[in-house]
Amino acid sequence: MLHHSVFFRFKEGTSEQESSQFLAAAKQLAYIPGVLHFICLRQTSTKNNFTHGLAMQFAQEEDYAAYTIHSAHQQFITDSWIPRVADFLEIDYTVLPG
Amino acid sequence: MLHHSVFFRFKEGTSEQESSQFLAAAKQLAYIPGVLHFICLRQTSTKNNFTHGLAMQFAQEEDYAAYTIHSAHQQFITDSWIPRVADFLEIDYTVLPG
Repeated sequence: MLHHSVFFRFKEGTSEQESSQFLAAAKQLAYIPGVLHFICLRQTSTKNNFTHGLAMQFAQEEDYAAYTIHSAHQQFITDSWIPRVADFLEIDYTVLPG
Repeated sequence: MLHHSVFFRFKEGTSEQESSQFLAAAKQLAYIPGVLHFICLRQTSTKNNFTHGLAMQFAQEEDYAAYTIHSAHQQFITDSWIPRVADFLEIDYTVLPG
């Protein structure tokens, strides 16, 4: 299983309503084929500058690749991500055997 | 549920054997009281410089606080973390309601 996550913070001046609208739009990414266990999250560590995140899983690389170029994902980046996000970090992982 | 994770990379020159020993030591953190769903992971995104990570969950803040100061955690930091880790980022989160 491939774990994909992105941690981010909103641009200064983003209102509560705008961040709620952003998260509502983000939740639609869960319906892109291949996306599993989609969550929106609040980042709580004081040791980095991110306030939120999105995380999901993919069963295989092909699903991840298809998600990346899916029109709904691209639309989200154009309509929501670029206007609202100030900084972000992508982190992906696979679980090492026990 | 509180999700705690740390992503890191080893110091240059760390051998395969040394990184395996590090991960074996890290796995012992799973036995500290309050630590749930402990995993070691391989960070796979090319968009950051981290190669590995550790992640776990806590049912409540008190368990996280107790883990942080637990002697086995402190010992791991002294004996394994500081000698081997070049750079790291801690990320914690709670899942936002659906």
